[in-house]
Amino acid sequence: MPGNVFGQEFRITTFGESHGAAIGVVVDGVTPGTQIDTGFIRHEMERRRPGQSAVSTARQEEDTVEILSGVFEGKATGTPLAMVIRNRDAHSRSYDDVKDLFRPGHADYAYQQKYGVRDYRGGGRSSGRETAARVAAGAIAKMMLSGRDISIVAYVRRAAGIECETIDFNEIENNIVRAADPVAAEKMIARIMELKAAGNSAGGVVECVIRNVPAGLGEPAFDKLDADLAKAMLSLGAVKGIEFGDGFAAADLTGQENNDEIAASGFLSNHAGGVTGGISTGQEIIFRLAVKPTPSISLPQKTVDIAGNEVECRTVGRHDPFIGARIVPVVEAMAAIVLVDHLKRQAALRA
Amino acid sequence: MPGNVFGQEFRITTFGESHGAAIGVVVDGVTPGTQIDTGFIRHEMERRRPGQSAVSTARQEEDTVEILSGVFEGKATGTPLAMVIRNRDAHSRSYDDVKDLFRPGHADYAYQQKYGVRDYRGGGRSSGRETAARVAAGAIAKMMLSGRDISIVAYVRRAAGIECETIDFNEIENNIVRAADPVAAEKMIARIMELKAAGNSAGGVVECVIRNVPAGLGEPAFDKLDADLAKAMLSLGAVKGIEFGDGFAAADLTGQENNDEIAASGFLSNHAGGVTGGISTGQEIIFRLAVKPTPSISLPQKTVDIAGNEVECRTVGRHDPFIGARIVPVVEAMAAIVLVDHLKRQAALRA
Amino acid sequence: MPGNVFGQEFRITTFGESHGAAIGVVVDGVTPGTQIDTGFIRHEMERRRPGQSAVSTARQEEDTVEILSGVFEGKATGTPLAMVIRNRDAHSRSYDDVKDLFRPGHADYAYQQKYGVRDYRGGGRSSGRETAARVAAGAIAKMMLSGRDISIVAYVRRAAGIECETIDFNEIENNIVRAADPVAAEKMIARIMELKAAGNSAGGVVECVIRNVPAGLGEPAFDKLDADLAKAMLSLGAVKGIEFGDGFAAADLTGQENNDEIAASGFLSNHAGGVTGGISTGQEIIFRLAVKPTPSISLPQKTVDIAGNEVECRTVGRHDPFIGARIVPVVEAMAAIVLVDHLKRQAALRA
Amino acid sequence: MPGNVFGQEFRITTFGESHGAAIGVVVDGVTPGTQIDTGFIRHEMERRRPGQSAVSTARQEEDTVEILSGVFEGKATGTPLAMVIRNRDAHSRSYDDVKDLFRPGHADYAYQQKYGVRDYRGGGRSSGRETAARVAAGAIAKMMLSGRDISIVAYVRRAAGIECETIDFNEIENNIVRAADPVAAEKMIARIMELKAAGNSAGGVVECVIRNVPAGLGEPAFDKLDADLAKAMLSLGAVKGIEFGDGFAAADLTGQENNDEIAASGFLSNHAGGVTGGISTGQEIIFRLAVKPTPSISLPQKTVDIAGNEVECRTVGRHDPFIGARIVPVVEAMAAIVLVDHLKRQAALRA
Repeated sequence: MPGNVFGQEFRITTFGESHGAAIGVVVDGVTPGTQIDTGFIRHEMERRRPGQSAVSTARQEEDTVEILSGVFEGKATGTPLAMVIRNRDAHSRSYDDVKDLFRPGHADYAYQQKYGVRDYRGGGRSSGRETAARVAAGAIAKMMLSGRDISIVAYVRRAAGIECETIDFNEIENNIVRAADPVAAEKMIARIMELKAAGNSAGGVVECVIRNVPAGLGEPAFDKLDADLAKAMLSLGAVKGIEFGDGFAAADLTGQENNDEIAASGFLSNHAGGVTGGISTGQEIIFRLAVKPTPSISLPQKTVDIAGNEVECRTVGRHDPFIGARIVPVVEAMAAIVLVDHLKRQAALRA
Repeated sequence: MPGNVFGQEFRITTFGESHGAAIGVVVDGVTPGTQIDTGFIRHEMERRRPGQSAVSTARQEEDTVEILSGVFEGKATGTPLAMVIRNRDAHSRSYDDVKDLFRPGHADYAYQQKYGVRDYRGGGRSSGRETAARVAAGAIAKMMLSGRDISIVAYVRRAAGIECETIDFNEIENNIVRAADPVAAEKMIARIMELKAAGNSAGGVVECVIRNVPAGLGEPAFDKLDADLAKAMLSLGAVKGIEFGDGFAAADLTGQENNDEIAASGFLSNHAGGVTGGISTGQEIIFRLAVKPTPSISLPQKTVDIAGNEVECRTVGRHDPFIGARIVPVVEAMAAIVLVDHLKRQAALRA
Repeated sequence: MPGNVFGQEFRITTFGESHGAAIGVVVDGVTPGTQIDTGFIRHEMERRRPGQSAVSTARQEEDTVEILSGVFEGKATGTPLAMVIRNRDAHSRSYDDVKDLFRPGHADYAYQQKYGVRDYRGGGRSSGRETAARVAAGAIAKMMLSGRDISIVAYVRRAAGIECETIDFNEIENNIVRAADPVAAEKMIARIMELKAAGNSAGGVVECVIRNVPAGLGEPAFDKLDADLAKAMLSLGAVKGIEFGDGFAAADLTGQENNDEIAASGFLSNHAGGVTGGISTGQEIIFRLAVKPTPSISLPQKTVDIAGNEVECRTVGRHDPFIGARIVPVVEAMAAIVLVDHLKRQAALRA
Repeated sequence: MPGNVFGQEFRITTFGESHGAAIGVVVDGVTPGTQIDTGFIRHEMERRRPGQSAVSTARQEEDTVEILSGVFEGKATGTPLAMVIRNRDAHSRSYDDVKDLFRPGHADYAYQQKYGVRDYRGGGRSSGRETAARVAAGAIAKMMLSGRDISIVAYVRRAAGIECETIDFNEIENNIVRAADPVAAEKMIARIMELKAAGNSAGGVVECVIRNVPAGLGEPAFDKLDADLAKAMLSLGAVKGIEFGDGFAAADLTGQENNDEIAASGFLSNHAGGVTGGISTGQEIIFRLAVKPTPSISLPQKTVDIAGNEVECRTVGRHDPFIGARIVPVVEAMAAIVLVDHLKRQAALRA
């Protein structure tokens, strides 16, 4: 099966290339009657939009979402809700000199091997631009969650080697790296700007915290809630790892240290990150993502062209020196999509 | 959709509880004509079998696999290959005193919330025993890969806080923790035995290395090869995190450091772990898993019973002080299943 | 994707060959808490069992269903419910003389072309024996429907050219052809016995009537309720056609004649057969199936062997001179499976 | 799972309402490198287009297809190919007087019961307009088949009670009812025009013949080729029945009459319609569809409004007095989609 459909009962199908006519998404399984607030969709798109700050690409896209179907008189009808986002500021010409070579760190080589042909302009389908469609779909998912008091917050916990020392969710949208610590944010920005000036880029760690998820979501043995969240997050090109709760640190704990004891008032700790046996416990769901440094850098690198000749590559398009800040709304979107899907699946199981 | 089916073109459906009549799996999509070697299935089951060593549970199960269908005259017919493993050494009586309470670190509470009823004996469906069915299916997958020269090796890289300092794949099956370093293995075993004696348990890190995977496997945007591997691995109850290539360490690298340059002879490094844009590059695929310490410990812990009363819990069944050694063949099995699935999906795409 | 999984939220995976060790099914998505009545399963199996009457095959199978998982203390746990039926009375030796040739009307040739190998004994996977697993799964589905007052009745409406002239559901289980008209039943039996004596076989028409289905089931645009029922029924090897409501007769009606008018008391007619736009209307769902004459006959027929040589074929195994009577419980089972699936899907949509 | 995705390895997702902004489709699994001929897409759209003749609706839509993604330099890239068709000639005002009532024979009532809300304009999602997206996707499928010599031809075999007496495929596109017999076509047209003048409508039978399909397509036990074709065809709102080969007539045959004998030169007859055991035999695949008379008629009919009051309904929009002629390209499109899907699935099975 080709891989452009995600989810079961709430299911999205995305399409589009970075420099094609448009990208978009068909959202299937929207609960009929859901209020669709186009202002909220715009707000979410704005958070992911390129050109939003000095640490993001200079590409200017308004990312206006046109709804083609599935909404009538302001409400979802339960039929597929299709959204299209036109590509406006596509400088495809910039890619003429990389069209025959494989940029290091990019998917160019892998795409060529897989498909035998490729739309090289801006990475084509492998571009992070594809995630705009996910954010639009995620906005729909968030509207579906709005009556349930579930909150999903992602933020940059670490960037360019600098870690947040305090965590204040109210600070996240106040700085251009979306860090939860304003002091760390300044240091991150300074370091990223240095790297940018040098034609280089930075990586980081994004954390996501989800509150008020009811206990009981997740479908063992395979579609465990954490397994589906892991798939959702690893389907983002920049993400190279995920850990729930204590994650890799749990590897060095003993059972006594790692087990979450329970009192009449609830769990006494949350080493597990809100999921046991693949099912939500009602605690906070917490996971962290390893975000690799943007592969697009303007420093010279060794590579080969399509004929196998060794060449020097120097990426000249407009790119993000740090993608972490823009990935934050994408992570939230994917988390919302997974949650809505599993809420519906649990409803089906118990029906 | 309920969650007991995994894969697309190569698809497994598992069933069974720890202390029910049997566990098993239906494997659909076996290439017709595949030679089915029951000795190899037995060999793989033996590697996962409980009671195999001092660092594993004392439960004795021969884990004999009976093939019910899909094989004729020693060859797969292409129809569903069903395998059943009877539960023999089930001491369900041991669980009478935990049947009304939620063991910390286990899925007991989450299962009760999700299903409203549960088979409490040995954890029921949430037990690691379910993975025996995956190993049986994985053995079929490995046989399907046998003509392709693909090798899949998993091993314990870290246990109870001790890391392998050398990596020698030939050592893995020579020690009961399945570490790739015999010196570290002895230290790991000593530390685990100490914890076991104290009624406690240990966690660790398992690494998996896959060689000779052709470039081009993986189905963007969502069914990326790493996304599907992540889902497969996070669907194991003990796994709390996964990272590919440099993983979380990549978060602190710059683009220049992290990008894998290419020469005429091939890639010059492998920070990516063999996957870019969700598609295999032909390099080694490398990932690491955070394995939590076994939640079943005999030390007293606080919990509540089904009525909400606070009680002391002390697990008395037979359990693994360290599950890492036994998870190794399960990780290989799931990796093999994902690879076979994606090989077939790629064949379909190009057909 | 291989084709041995059916359904979405209620999903069955079947396996097994006619003369292998066993056939069986894994039922996923059973509502936790459902009472599982093994006596009812036995009753349903008995209705499909071979050897039940003079118009069915002489093969004797008790078709005892062993439940391997998913049931605890008499209730479904919500985890996969696996059932196995051993093949006892398999005379595989009878098939030695047909192993290298393609029986006319059978799937032998098609299987050989598709898989390149085949288990020729009794038709292997293509045998109607596979439907025993469906009946077992259907019994579970019927138990899930039991609190809903939905009734599903199938019966033989026409056999060997003889049509029921009266329809009395109470008569169906009173005659061995499962006709709804006792007078027609006698004629049908007489004609079938004549054909049997001549080494020949008969076809017929099975009708299915489903009452008290709530309005609103079915998932346009593709998973319409009638589309999913059609797929379910055409997945039975003997079924060559399906029609809903007036069906092919509607082709000759005008819109005025065919439209079902509505009054305050409800619909005034049911030309549509209870489904419009692919969604149930709350009326009776009615469909009819064309059941072909059993291909296994003992009259000589022309065919070729695997080497392409022309040979005479005369099937000597034990076969049904008329399969319609035994297909009745299978049709009901598949209908129940589709309905449970769509009830759950509708619950998910509205959640 | 919501029902707007069809197919496995070749998978389409459709969206759109009759009087919304647009309808469209995302086609996933297009073989990379496939030549995309926009002229051919236009040609196929033209065959389904409303307003094409006196026996079709007067609604004027150019049905221009815009490709948004998945094509680069005239070739498919293997990534999702999205197509959008704008609704231009939507007279939504015409529907103001039916917005609160349920038109007999339409899906209005069922949609209201299912979703609780509905876009009443022109039937919304239940409109036959949805099939324009299928024709666009089918055009892609046909291009993928073009190198294989497979031909798919559908035509009107019966309309308004008049049957073709000769079958000449070359005549199909020469008459506005798409009948294969020019003499019968004239009678059909005359009868349909009479019904149209009376504010009434006609039904008919469409036959589809597929040649040069390789033996071996179809995935038992459930995804049999005929089962998947049946689902595809019954997912068309106007289709109330399907039969393969001799179909319902086979119910009255004996096994001896119905079995297709085989000689060295191939099958000696084709009662089965090209499929046995759910797998193609390499013979012609033949099936017939019962097409109901268009429910939209201007004669007065009894119905109720949303409050349950009895009212008289008289549909005034622009409608097809006979939908059979326009369904012909839709049937071909769905058949092509099923075939491409199964060709890819067979490639995966054997890989």
